[in-house]
Amino acid sequence: MLPRGRPRALGAATLLLLLLLVVGFFLFGRDPEYGLRAAATFDGDPYGSRNRSASGLHPLLPPKCELLHVAIVCAGYNSSREVITLVKSVLFYRKNPLHLHLVTDAVARNILETLFRTWMVPAVVIRFYDAEELKPLISWIPNTHYSGLYGLMKLVLPSILPLSLARVIVLDTDVTFSSDIAELWALFAHFSGVILLWLDRLRQTGWEQMWTLTAKRELLTLMATSLADQDVFNAVIKEHPELVHPLPCVWNVQLSDHTLAERCYLEAADLKVIHWNSPKKLRVKNKHAEFFRNLHLTFLGYDGKLLRRELFGCPNQLPPGAEQLQQALAQLDEEEPCFEFRQQQLTVHRVHITFLPHQPPPPRPHDVTLVAQLSMDRLQMLEALCRHWSGPMSLALYLTDAEAQQFLHFVETSPVLSARKDVAYHIVYRDGPLYPVNQLRNVALAQALTPYVFLSDIDFLPAYSLYDYLRASIEQLELGSRRKAALVVPAFETLHYRFSFPNSKAELLTLLDAGSLHIFRYHEWPQGHAPTDYAHWREAQAPYHVQWAADYEPYVVVPRDCPRYDPRFVGFGWNKVAHIIELDAQEYELLVLPEAFSIHLPHAPSLDISRFRSSPTYRDCLQALKEEFHQDLSRHYGAAALKYLTALQQSQSRA
Amino acid sequence: MLPRGRPRALGAATLLLLLLLVVGFFLFGRDPEYGLRAAATFDGDPYGSRNRSASGLHPLLPPKCELLHVAIVCAGYNSSREVITLVKSVLFYRKNPLHLHLVTDAVARNILETLFRTWMVPAVVIRFYDAEELKPLISWIPNTHYSGLYGLMKLVLPSILPLSLARVIVLDTDVTFSSDIAELWALFAHFSGVILLWLDRLRQTGWEQMWTLTAKRELLTLMATSLADQDVFNAVIKEHPELVHPLPCVWNVQLSDHTLAERCYLEAADLKVIHWNSPKKLRVKNKHAEFFRNLHLTFLGYDGKLLRRELFGCPNQLPPGAEQLQQALAQLDEEEPCFEFRQQQLTVHRVHITFLPHQPPPPRPHDVTLVAQLSMDRLQMLEALCRHWSGPMSLALYLTDAEAQQFLHFVETSPVLSARKDVAYHIVYRDGPLYPVNQLRNVALAQALTPYVFLSDIDFLPAYSLYDYLRASIEQLELGSRRKAALVVPAFETLHYRFSFPNSKAELLTLLDAGSLHIFRYHEWPQGHAPTDYAHWREAQAPYHVQWAADYEPYVVVPRDCPRYDPRFVGFGWNKVAHIIELDAQEYELLVLPEAFSIHLPHAPSLDISRFRSSPTYRDCLQALKEEFHQDLSRHYGAAALKYLTALQQSQSRA
Repeated sequence: MLPRGRPRALGAATLLLLLLLVVGFFLFGRDPEYGLRAAATFDGDPYGSRNRSASGLHPLLPPKCELLHVAIVCAGYNSSREVITLVKSVLFYRKNPLHLHLVTDAVARNILETLFRTWMVPAVVIRFYDAEELKPLISWIPNTHYSGLYGLMKLVLPSILPLSLARVIVLDTDVTFSSDIAELWALFAHFSGVILLWLDRLRQTGWEQMWTLTAKRELLTLMATSLADQDVFNAVIKEHPELVHPLPCVWNVQLSDHTLAERCYLEAADLKVIHWNSPKKLRVKNKHAEFFRNLHLTFLGYDGKLLRRELFGCPNQLPPGAEQLQQALAQLDEEEPCFEFRQQQLTVHRVHITFLPHQPPPPRPHDVTLVAQLSMDRLQMLEALCRHWSGPMSLALYLTDAEAQQFLHFVETSPVLSARKDVAYHIVYRDGPLYPVNQLRNVALAQALTPYVFLSDIDFLPAYSLYDYLRASIEQLELGSRRKAALVVPAFETLHYRFSFPNSKAELLTLLDAGSLHIFRYHEWPQGHAPTDYAHWREAQAPYHVQWAADYEPYVVVPRDCPRYDPRFVGFGWNKVAHIIELDAQEYELLVLPEAFSIHLPHAPSLDISRFRSSPTYRDCLQALKEEFHQDLSRHYGAAALKYLTALQQSQSRA
Repeated sequence: MLPRGRPRALGAATLLLLLLLVVGFFLFGRDPEYGLRAAATFDGDPYGSRNRSASGLHPLLPPKCELLHVAIVCAGYNSSREVITLVKSVLFYRKNPLHLHLVTDAVARNILETLFRTWMVPAVVIRFYDAEELKPLISWIPNTHYSGLYGLMKLVLPSILPLSLARVIVLDTDVTFSSDIAELWALFAHFSGVILLWLDRLRQTGWEQMWTLTAKRELLTLMATSLADQDVFNAVIKEHPELVHPLPCVWNVQLSDHTLAERCYLEAADLKVIHWNSPKKLRVKNKHAEFFRNLHLTFLGYDGKLLRRELFGCPNQLPPGAEQLQQALAQLDEEEPCFEFRQQQLTVHRVHITFLPHQPPPPRPHDVTLVAQLSMDRLQMLEALCRHWSGPMSLALYLTDAEAQQFLHFVETSPVLSARKDVAYHIVYRDGPLYPVNQLRNVALAQALTPYVFLSDIDFLPAYSLYDYLRASIEQLELGSRRKAALVVPAFETLHYRFSFPNSKAELLTLLDAGSLHIFRYHEWPQGHAPTDYAHWREAQAPYHVQWAADYEPYVVVPRDCPRYDPRFVGFGWNKVAHIIELDAQEYELLVLPEAFSIHLPHAPSLDISRFRSSPTYRDCLQALKEEFHQDLSRHYGAAALKYLTALQQSQSRA
């Protein structure tokens, strides 16, 4: 809810949710009948109910491929989440190409740019406008709340949107569509020439002056201490009623405890837009709230990838990269045994970075971000991880849209998690049968904001001291500027379900000797960590160098600009091994830290590891990926990569 | 795909997907142009595309609250799943009350009756018709496949549907709507009186004779060895073209590799119905398949509970029980600390019994079904469980609609699971924040078909011999007829992630003595299993009696008609304890079996147990539930229940 300057005077007016900017405004005014009565003059059928011929309510729909323009003001983490649900509902019903004009702050732009780039929805054009540039135009208006400023930006949209743009639908972020937005667009036709004239008049002779004058007079005469966008709109409309064309009530079903909208929807068969303009939002106790909630939840949990639907018969409007992707997918052979792997590698996942409010860490030269990835079945690790690691984290979560909502609830109800603002959660939306482990790691890595990263896995808990110790080590070793180094954090594991975590290296060694702890995968996969040289580590007082060897996959701390993970490795196996080879090929020193450790907790085997174990085809495909990786390595590093190939062949001849 | 009698002659005709029975049939006939050309005569705009005014394509929609009739023939497990996706797509877009006329076999009726009863969708009436009764009317037609018989039933629908029914839309199960079914219904209006006349003529003078004569002639003249419903429809239409009114092509977008439908949808903005009439179904390689697949997947994964939407302004059409439920929910106090528990207890979950094909076990007097419940995070237990228990199982799964599809994929790709037809999976759809553990157990218990049930939990693996041993014990002990007994299966646990399962009691005791195994929850919750008397069990050679004591919660084998679990216990805690009290109150003997055992495998703590541990409110609410349970117990069993209350008070004063 925006703050209200004159709450009583405006009565039920509340938010203007849906503006037909330049064309007209819809208002539940002081007179509770106004909206309905005005709508009744519209086409003789306010509710579009008794006569349900579509021609009764709306005129001709726009031509099949006509581009519809929508403008939305959006700032911050939470509004970015809201706007996505709104856009999903619009896309679900739309049949026309869309142009979204998004007025955003830096946070929302960063999030939404990534999202729309990875969403790859055909026939949707996105343009961003910098909200910062609009601030001077409205910042003179007193406003009780920072976010109110973004509401006021709707006043200046006519100045910022391109001159070539004649019509635009302006939407609040807390709106859900339950019909084709083209039907709303069609209402423009009711005004035909008259409106276009208005548009000219507004642009040429002064919408700008009109509203600023009004706003200033309001401030003077009413001694208002603050004005929200709604206050200004209402005041202008009062002075210039000719500007307004009310929308039929079905286009503004406001959901609040005292809504007047009930009279509308009881008559109408067809609600077009639901507006969540109650501070209680989804918890509102309207007796029909269930109906509205279900509509909203439909799109909250809707799998956004299903909206990558083409509009048939319209000129091709594929987003960047989509055509090449389609061709690459079409060239895959479905009968090939590794088809699933090939398909998964090509999959572009929708990515929603910083899904929850986040405070970026202050710039500190030796700071380290813990980087990891997880899916729903590891959520319960997060609280423990927060207790073990007090520094920043960048975590990629592989979730469905519905699971993302469960995750949100999980964080909100956890005092431990909701207290932490230095943990950034990035949602990568599920698509395909194989776990895209390295794509997830790369998303988390790319969003880490400190100079160093600790590349961990979600089922490991670091030593309580690790965050401080790593920063101190980075400082002492003078990494970064002079040294290209990877600091190895030795890995251990417990096979016990209940387990008390060692507070020091000494305690850890005692547990190790007692058989309660083990070197990580010591029995199943010794080569994975053998080069760390645990015998040396027991006695070590200072960092020591180790050499790369085949299948080595330690957990390391590296500069943020380290090589990315190879996204070809999907599912189980070899995903970290390949990354360590890259580090070695790029001549990173490997330095083991004497006081660092991290412990793996037991869990049921993942579905991917079960498939690896039970399916020879799965293992063959992994082998093929390895070989392709080595070919690329040779191509890239030449003779220097020979040792990796030799090592691979030796380990294969042993097997 | 139904078998085809004359595949070549019919060419592209394939399935008649969408019949406007009595009114007319739409046919892609021998002439590939026919469907489109005929549609073009319909309203001058075959595609409803260029002029997108809704009035262009369809006439007046039916009045707001008019009841629309839909008939579907559905038989077996897989068709029952299909029909639900179809119904979801219809409900999503519908704005009218619906009457579904379902012609079903016993399997589909059992599934769909439970589903619709628990779905509680307002303004939907369901009526079942027994397919068995129709069989004599069509069984004379030679048919290559059993399921073809159900296709032929569409021919006799006019005879079986009520005489009062003038119009009905007949749908195949493999159809997905992408528009309001009222628009299809509206096409009836195009025929007005003429069609109603036809209806009379059909009923009075002989649709029956018409199609049977035609079918017999076809069989004679063409020497066809079998006829599918489509063959008969096509032959009748050929002889009586006046019966047919073709539908516009947007109402029959057939998805096959050689579809002619592309010409339709490239022109149309608005597809109304997608028909999955390719044997490859979702894997079809049509270049636009992505579009259709997404529409279909939308409803496969759509949360059906969101379709419990009222139709505002129509006479109340709440399903049985829904009104009382709404009132009960409305009376809850949202501010009360245990509100979540109260709400969860009242929640009616949609239930889809026998989600996958299932062979009921043959009747055997001492047979035992393993009964358990699980959610997605325990799926990986199923294969191990199948290896340990070779008998029938009845499992309730708590899943979202989308997870149910993942589960289906999981079973289909597991050789172990897909080989087992004696495991019945019942989906209980997720709704609410607390795990409804006892409601799940009751669903699984109610669907067990053997005289005895082993009430287990999903994270336990029974001894390999347990199934045989239990049946032998039941026989020896002469349970059932003479004795009301609960056989106790002693419970153990391993805290180790990797673990080799003992093959005998002797091996188990060795592991127990070595500390690799423990009595279940021996340290955390000894009272849960103490009465089993493990010291006695070590030495026992014969079953022995034990007495109930406070908090006892053994795993037991009981007759199928045992008391149900108390559904008030949602989330973590006391759910099994209350059930054992009920057994004791009903004077079941408790008999421990000397060779039986079952072992709990470690897993990460559930979200519910984490909440129990961290939230005092959660624990207080559980306490309140316990007290209410005891009050009900006293009310029901009188003085006999006193001992339970005393035990409760003693254990509380100790705590």
